[in-house]
Amino acid sequence: MIPSRLDQLERHEKLRLQAKAMQRPEAHLKNLITAADRLEHYSVRGGGLFLDYSRQRIDNSARQLLFGLDQELALRDRFARMMHGERLNVTENRAVLHTAARSFADDPVVLDGVDVMPEIRRVRDQIKFFSEQVHTGQITGANGRPFRHVVVIGIGGSYLGPEFVSTALAALADRNITLHYLANVDIDNFGAVAAAIDPPSTLWVVISKSFTTAETSANTIQAEQFMRAKGLDPSRHMITVTSKGSPGDDPSRPVLQTFHMFDFIGGRYSVTSAVGGVPLSLLLGYDRFEAFLKGAAEMDAHALNAPVEQNLPLIAALLSVWNTTYLGYQQQGIIPYSSPLAKLAPHVQQLNMESNGKAVDTAGAFLPEPAGVVIFGEPGTNAQHSFFQLAHQGKPFPIDFIGVRTPQHTQYQARSKGVTNHQELWANLLAQARALAVGRDHADKARHFDGNRPSSTIVLDDLAPENIGRLLSFYEARTVYEGFIWGVNSFDQFGVELGKTVADSLRSEMARKNDQPGYDFAGTDPISRAYLEMLFSADQ
Amino acid sequence: MIPSRLDQLERHEKLRLQAKAMQRPEAHLKNLITAADRLEHYSVRGGGLFLDYSRQRIDNSARQLLFGLDQELALRDRFARMMHGERLNVTENRAVLHTAARSFADDPVVLDGVDVMPEIRRVRDQIKFFSEQVHTGQITGANGRPFRHVVVIGIGGSYLGPEFVSTALAALADRNITLHYLANVDIDNFGAVAAAIDPPSTLWVVISKSFTTAETSANTIQAEQFMRAKGLDPSRHMITVTSKGSPGDDPSRPVLQTFHMFDFIGGRYSVTSAVGGVPLSLLLGYDRFEAFLKGAAEMDAHALNAPVEQNLPLIAALLSVWNTTYLGYQQQGIIPYSSPLAKLAPHVQQLNMESNGKAVDTAGAFLPEPAGVVIFGEPGTNAQHSFFQLAHQGKPFPIDFIGVRTPQHTQYQARSKGVTNHQELWANLLAQARALAVGRDHADKARHFDGNRPSSTIVLDDLAPENIGRLLSFYEARTVYEGFIWGVNSFDQFGVELGKTVADSLRSEMARKNDQPGYDFAGTDPISRAYLEMLFSADQ
Repeated sequence: MIPSRLDQLERHEKLRLQAKAMQRPEAHLKNLITAADRLEHYSVRGGGLFLDYSRQRIDNSARQLLFGLDQELALRDRFARMMHGERLNVTENRAVLHTAARSFADDPVVLDGVDVMPEIRRVRDQIKFFSEQVHTGQITGANGRPFRHVVVIGIGGSYLGPEFVSTALAALADRNITLHYLANVDIDNFGAVAAAIDPPSTLWVVISKSFTTAETSANTIQAEQFMRAKGLDPSRHMITVTSKGSPGDDPSRPVLQTFHMFDFIGGRYSVTSAVGGVPLSLLLGYDRFEAFLKGAAEMDAHALNAPVEQNLPLIAALLSVWNTTYLGYQQQGIIPYSSPLAKLAPHVQQLNMESNGKAVDTAGAFLPEPAGVVIFGEPGTNAQHSFFQLAHQGKPFPIDFIGVRTPQHTQYQARSKGVTNHQELWANLLAQARALAVGRDHADKARHFDGNRPSSTIVLDDLAPENIGRLLSFYEARTVYEGFIWGVNSFDQFGVELGKTVADSLRSEMARKNDQPGYDFAGTDPISRAYLEMLFSADQ
Repeated sequence: MIPSRLDQLERHEKLRLQAKAMQRPEAHLKNLITAADRLEHYSVRGGGLFLDYSRQRIDNSARQLLFGLDQELALRDRFARMMHGERLNVTENRAVLHTAARSFADDPVVLDGVDVMPEIRRVRDQIKFFSEQVHTGQITGANGRPFRHVVVIGIGGSYLGPEFVSTALAALADRNITLHYLANVDIDNFGAVAAAIDPPSTLWVVISKSFTTAETSANTIQAEQFMRAKGLDPSRHMITVTSKGSPGDDPSRPVLQTFHMFDFIGGRYSVTSAVGGVPLSLLLGYDRFEAFLKGAAEMDAHALNAPVEQNLPLIAALLSVWNTTYLGYQQQGIIPYSSPLAKLAPHVQQLNMESNGKAVDTAGAFLPEPAGVVIFGEPGTNAQHSFFQLAHQGKPFPIDFIGVRTPQHTQYQARSKGVTNHQELWANLLAQARALAVGRDHADKARHFDGNRPSSTIVLDDLAPENIGRLLSFYEARTVYEGFIWGVNSFDQFGVELGKTVADSLRSEMARKNDQPGYDFAGTDPISRAYLEMLFSADQ
């Protein structure tokens, strides 16, 4: 019987003692990194990326203890079972097959006796064909005008994943399409989008697995009414990405086309499915979407096959747990030194915090303390001029630095102080990782830096679609491995249910007031009632 | 002698004991908020905003202890001294007069025997006149075309403050100006801006107090070279916002116009100075900028004059310290239920974390533990579909919810499930604050919610410029009061110096390599050297 959780292992106590040992002065990072071979021994290349963890607070003993978790918790074995369709989402009795969405292998992926790959390939072909028809003008709006604006109506994973990738690859958007996101139910989100589009050349892409998400339904209704008010038939300006048989896949409610998503791919893992495929292919062309998928598939294979010593996402997951559970850090920063990666942190924030911010293990028992960690970040160098004061001299937190060897724009080579902008950017990335690690003693305490702040550095060769796919898959696999180590189900999200239940009840109160202006909100608690009165007394 | 720090007070121990008492089951929020008058007694209106702290984990005893800090630490007295020009930035021997930037009172603000107000008024008039001349086409680019694109080159406070306000008020941008931000030294930031503008109708606004900020200098050089390559004289497409006598205020290096900023206003507090004034007046018209200033001034007066029991920013600061130092929360979320407020959290992240993420007190002694807290956030309802899983069931953290009674767009009234989008938004805001507080017992532990998660709710009547000014000033004053309580200097940022020093040395290595291709980076450490070799072997 393989234990399912870290804290049930004997090794857990050893790791705790080891973490204590890392408090010794000689284990300060400024000492650890003086070893001439530190970088060589604490960095690894694989799946198309480079991971340097030489400035993490580990030594060989800590690393050996962490690497041993692979076998003891059968981590890579579980990853293989995930990729082969086992129902690891136990609370919802679902398989977890986002990796199948980007598989180009001939091997079947069998679920309940059925190979899911033919259906995945069919949807990919459908996306390719549809996006080409839009680009060539074979599919147009009701007035015959080509589509120039695409509005993605979706929230959570239907928004953050596509937003990350479309921002990263915006420099490649050469299909005359402007992409807009309508995620928030806030009418000001709708209003801003409505002001930015040209309705006759606008295609609305409604993304919702169940097609019952409150925000997405409300925004779809606004969009339909808006188009009708412009004299346009909404059904000729709308496509849906949804589960087979959902209300968005209902022939009595026609749309231009419907693309299927599957219950074996969770929202926050769905950007390589039709959820990302449709908007990204419209923005960039299907071929670039496929290149992105192939990069993700390469990292999937690496995450599955590489031994722990060389496995980037697995090492990153072990370090994340080490930093959180043993060294006690309460946050993690993600700081890409690359503007196009500006939306990586918000995406990983959802991916990781919704996956692993859990209080119970896979067997349904409470953990000794909740798993997960707060993830936040902004691009560097911007972050240096924002919250890095606290990072250097306030409460420390580990950071993922991300660097890109070749930027998207190499045509601007003006130099300042003898270096190009790209070199200046790298000088800053390297300086921050080093300064955080080594610190500086100073007699003036306001100018003293403790150092010993851990970081990893991840390097991409460039921002080609393949590398964005690799980076996406890296963070997905890291998240999954973390969940395996902590013993949580990284694929459900019951923590969002209570808010929905309470909102249902408040919405009913409001709807009743809309119908009966004299209604006094008798069905709610005193605090909420005061707010409802405040709201209904305003111009809204 | 007034003690300068919280932990030097006898009250400190009482607060610690009180925090322990708040762990008792009967002090769970679900019990505290059942009192019929809870909202009435734990909410306050002032300075044009409403603050509800009924769902913070305090009772009357805790509140009395916290309110007592006002007198014991002379908090409001210090705020008055700040507004009257005392050099509270002791390490840099500077006054802290961002409040003067939005003063419309006749009272002088005297610094070193000189009233600073006439100069502030002169700059305001200059902004008004200049922006009107741009809008009417009296000032144009070199080819005589009116300015349609404004690119703000600036980083840190020269970026995040203007970005917050311009995003909040984007619906009012009716002057035919598109605003772009060039903050990051990343050449891909420059490349994206260059691709989005029309050079002959582009005005570059370079904002830097010292005019030596590395990123801003490098981007200015790129912009000048870019304009020249387009056959345009950069000096006729550029204005500067900088200190009197800086390299950006040098007649031998002419620009269209120079606007002064002052060393008594720190970058992160500077959005109401010319730093925000120039871009915001160009985008929105000067009158709206002035309305924004007047809202901020109203909240300044409230922060200065209101007794502690009614003082919104002071109460918020006391709660922030209570949550961080006594209840042990390590983060704070800022969740505006309003898309236009999407950039509030990144702004406050800088404002607060750079101000208070400090390890030393104003006397230069180490604090018992570093002050400050990690601030992060995304708009609701988006955040509910992202990291709220962790908020509900993982490690708890306090949240500021922000609601707006009247949205910018009231013309879209389609209903879903009986309510408008704006009502749905409010149903969610209210539901989250309540669900986090009360939780839910459930036999299935995966569906159990501990509750007892604290939050405040701040309400704006609408998104008029005045209210954005009030909200800005609220968070500034909250930050300042927090600093007073923790006893830190909220106005310096020595924590960013070490990274700059290390970057200087790495930049020199790169510059030398640019000049001497055979150079082997002998002057740096082995890890940095490996990266420099990796970078210089790439197409960059």
